[in-house]
Amino acid sequence: MIFTSLRTDIDEGYDKMAEKMVELAAQQQGYLGVESARNETGITVSYWKDLDSIKKWKQQTDHLLAQQLGRQKWYETYKTRISLVERDYGFES
Amino acid sequence: MIFTSLRTDIDEGYDKMAEKMVELAAQQQGYLGVESARNETGITVSYWKDLDSIKKWKQQTDHLLAQQLGRQKWYETYKTRISLVERDYGFES
Repeated sequence: MIFTSLRTDIDEGYDKMAEKMVELAAQQQGYLGVESARNETGITVSYWKDLDSIKKWKQQTDHLLAQQLGRQKWYETYKTRISLVERDYGFES
Repeated sequence: MIFTSLRTDIDEGYDKMAEKMVELAAQQQGYLGVESARNETGITVSYWKDLDSIKKWKQQTDHLLAQQLGRQKWYETYKTRISLVERDYGFES
């Protein structure tokens, strides 16, 4: 799940909530991991076992509240892309 | 295509090359867009029409050179994930 966003200039509770959501996601069934970075654009990629796990995470109660607050306060715009990893490869020095 | 990376502390030409690759990618057939952010972890998500476009981009001559320099100098570690966007949805304030 690729979540890209632009923030508003309202900080009010944002960092705390972002941290809480990272912790909460990690407790969900089917969670595999997360990577996050922000400059102007923020990108959070979370990895899940299957679509069902993503669906459940989207509907998790505290997460629903966070999404609502996000739209009300913290995000100017965001986009979520559900995508299926077909293959991966990497490099380590 | 999701590219996540950790940089070395070698800067030598990195910013210039990163900029050049963003411009070059945008000229390739099948390119749809790119989003990028870095704190400690860097995440670049580039969007492509199909797997064939990604394959060609991976093998583009200047890009191959950049990849080689990346492994030699700039990246401690990186991972590329080829993934298929199944659906997307978003929010605009």
